[in-house]
Amino acid sequence: MSEIIRSLERDLNDFGDTLHLIGSDRLANRHPGEHAGNFGAGAMAEPATPEAAAAVVRWCFENDVPVVPQGGRTGLVGGGISRPGELILSTARLDRIEAIDPLARTVTVGAGVTLQALQEATADVGLIPGIDLAARGSATIGGMIATNAGGILAFRNGVMRHQVLGIEAVMPDGSLVSDLTRVLKVSAGPDIKQLLIGSEGAYGFVTRAVLKLESFNPMRATALVGVPDATAALALIAHFRSRPALQLEGAELMWQRYLRDSAADKGFDLGWLEADTPAILLMEVSAGREADAREALEEGLAALWEEHGLTSGIVAASLDQARRFWALREDGDFMYRHFPAAPSFDVSVPPGALDGYVDGLRQRLKAVDPGFDAYVYGHVADGNLHISVIGNGVAAPGVKEPIEDAVYTGVAELGGSFSAEHGVGTEKRRAYLSYGNASRRAVAQAIKAALDPKNLFNPGKVPYRADAPRT
Amino acid sequence: MSEIIRSLERDLNDFGDTLHLIGSDRLANRHPGEHAGNFGAGAMAEPATPEAAAAVVRWCFENDVPVVPQGGRTGLVGGGISRPGELILSTARLDRIEAIDPLARTVTVGAGVTLQALQEATADVGLIPGIDLAARGSATIGGMIATNAGGILAFRNGVMRHQVLGIEAVMPDGSLVSDLTRVLKVSAGPDIKQLLIGSEGAYGFVTRAVLKLESFNPMRATALVGVPDATAALALIAHFRSRPALQLEGAELMWQRYLRDSAADKGFDLGWLEADTPAILLMEVSAGREADAREALEEGLAALWEEHGLTSGIVAASLDQARRFWALREDGDFMYRHFPAAPSFDVSVPPGALDGYVDGLRQRLKAVDPGFDAYVYGHVADGNLHISVIGNGVAAPGVKEPIEDAVYTGVAELGGSFSAEHGVGTEKRRAYLSYGNASRRAVAQAIKAALDPKNLFNPGKVPYRADAPRT
Repeated sequence: MSEIIRSLERDLNDFGDTLHLIGSDRLANRHPGEHAGNFGAGAMAEPATPEAAAAVVRWCFENDVPVVPQGGRTGLVGGGISRPGELILSTARLDRIEAIDPLARTVTVGAGVTLQALQEATADVGLIPGIDLAARGSATIGGMIATNAGGILAFRNGVMRHQVLGIEAVMPDGSLVSDLTRVLKVSAGPDIKQLLIGSEGAYGFVTRAVLKLESFNPMRATALVGVPDATAALALIAHFRSRPALQLEGAELMWQRYLRDSAADKGFDLGWLEADTPAILLMEVSAGREADAREALEEGLAALWEEHGLTSGIVAASLDQARRFWALREDGDFMYRHFPAAPSFDVSVPPGALDGYVDGLRQRLKAVDPGFDAYVYGHVADGNLHISVIGNGVAAPGVKEPIEDAVYTGVAELGGSFSAEHGVGTEKRRAYLSYGNASRRAVAQAIKAALDPKNLFNPGKVPYRADAPRT
Repeated sequence: MSEIIRSLERDLNDFGDTLHLIGSDRLANRHPGEHAGNFGAGAMAEPATPEAAAAVVRWCFENDVPVVPQGGRTGLVGGGISRPGELILSTARLDRIEAIDPLARTVTVGAGVTLQALQEATADVGLIPGIDLAARGSATIGGMIATNAGGILAFRNGVMRHQVLGIEAVMPDGSLVSDLTRVLKVSAGPDIKQLLIGSEGAYGFVTRAVLKLESFNPMRATALVGVPDATAALALIAHFRSRPALQLEGAELMWQRYLRDSAADKGFDLGWLEADTPAILLMEVSAGREADAREALEEGLAALWEEHGLTSGIVAASLDQARRFWALREDGDFMYRHFPAAPSFDVSVPPGALDGYVDGLRQRLKAVDPGFDAYVYGHVADGNLHISVIGNGVAAPGVKEPIEDAVYTGVAELGGSFSAEHGVGTEKRRAYLSYGNASRRAVAQAIKAALDPKNLFNPGKVPYRADAPRT
């Protein structure tokens, strides 16, 4: 057992069951999540109350022990990696769904609750959280706040920041900021909780939050449509978004290679799809009745068919078939099985720039190595692409930075972002410094110095103290 | 001409027409807006470019001159009040609508553009800004960002913070933060621009912004419905929000006294309304066709009529009549004519708590003085109430604080806010200190010290330096 755990057990012995302290011996029986390095610290505190969390952080502040917040450990950029001498602070036991208010359309929820658990609880009153994403089974509300999660409904409901009404958090000095406002409209001075959203634990540890809830309409129709490019997909999206009695529920674009390999992985028949179709759009709409949704979908496709060069399409005949459509897009495990070393990226550009960006990306990758290719897919309505670079030698020495440059070139100039929804963590550190916004970085650093003068909160991740680089 | 203007003319003489410097002589010909004290400084800079704005702020930083940002000067809480020795920094000439992107649904806009000008420009592509409010003709985008404006569409589209994708701003040291991202999804480290939203100029001067745009559906129906209380109004709102092929476009509640006096002011016939109806709901919905909207509205009212004790209702027979319905709610000038000294407030509580809050408010006001009453009206779907306290002696010495206490008691405990959309300014300073969130204030102050160490930006307003109180 680590010295840190021994000291914590000695100094914080009056919290009873509201504070679990876990050494490396017991961590060895748990799964570290997406990154093998997540459990590097070998020491974890699991508070069950905000007060216990605050006591742990205060102890760390007094004893100069760095704190690494962890949620569902599903992050893809190493934001939860910890090292010996640090303490992991887990949200796992802050797992209560405290109050659902159907009239106000809000929920008060512990940071450790998974998205799926929250979805199941709110479904009872016909509402849903405004954010949905493929990792719903393991991603926690706290982690989604820390990374300002986006997902498949962001084009309509905004990102996590737009769904958070209130936050309770422990600041780096151990003080508790409790701003659990349950209303949408607050203009009562600087909104401090915004600093805790999307900062990956740099400024504090979120313990609870109040989230908005949105309507859910099960009267849906789902289609797969072969399209020549993102521009055609966007024309379809614009058509359905401007139809007043219709709601667009999802619009996910998969370029050819991702689609074909995903379909092969799942035994999904693509016989209906015209050969060499460059991309396929998964689209879901809702309406007053299921038949209306289906009819509107079919009419919209027919109306735009010739003008936008649509090649082929199928509308799901059952809920089960619709689920298989979604699995094509959401279950991407095959990529890691086929190409375990594939570097993966998550960028956003204004939707109208998607085709130009993807063409340029492929050219830039070929210039690095003619054998390189990419899986490209993502949330086309908001311009968010996920990219995995594949081919022999993608993980070879010296090729990492050229691949990154191929992916990031031009993104900022287009008004986009080098990280759309995954965060910066440790893996996008070079991108943050080379392709991020310098003026934004400078202010982030000034605030870090003011709120975390000892640089104890998730050190080595954003915003990176210039005077204390960690690798 | 003030010494400040003379010095600026001498030191910043290379900006030509991109920087106008205006002394008290020329200010005398302009309207100071909602507060007579707005022009107290007697010195104003009107930059036409971010670079000119940055040069002015840098000069102020070097010369220890406080800066008071001003937009449309329509703020109701004295956030733009200035004093001799300060410099007003106006957004008026940062008035370009630079780029509308219909595919991405974004607009890049100067901080000095009025909401109405932006609405007119985006209507050309069938889109609207997501925020709408009664002061649309004079309120500017920069001011709406500074106060985190809410208005009549917030229940659906969120508040201003949820509509801002990118910001360019001058920080208190004169450095320019340019983060004009044009995408919805950004998880690229701490989101510094959030500090500039809702901080009323405490942390910087916004020069440009990228905003989201939303769909506009003109196929509408509008009704006025007599309701026994807010609970009945919320039942109607919940009904229409859960109807899939229908969109709720507005839901404004007016309690009896506001309604009767507003109607009398406009010669609006209330003969159809059952006598003593406690409140009236203005509701607007949209659908696929105007007839569908109207039919859904009538059916919904009929379905809920008995259960919720609705007393009377009319559906607008024309667009002109719908406009008159809205004028009842939006044109509140009569209040200031009848009661020029009426203290006015802007609170939010979770919608389900509205009836209890309003009942308690009336009781607490009567306890201060049995002759006191209140105009109460507002955005019922998000729990935002506007309140004007009326009666003989509301402005008498010694009664200001008891009235404030009557209005604010219990608001924070309900999870609401003492200021919903107007801000803090100078007028809600006591409320900020007495009814605001202490933990939030402390962090706001630490950030103020880090970003504005000389306390030059809009001093005397939020977040109020503890070591340098201004009155």
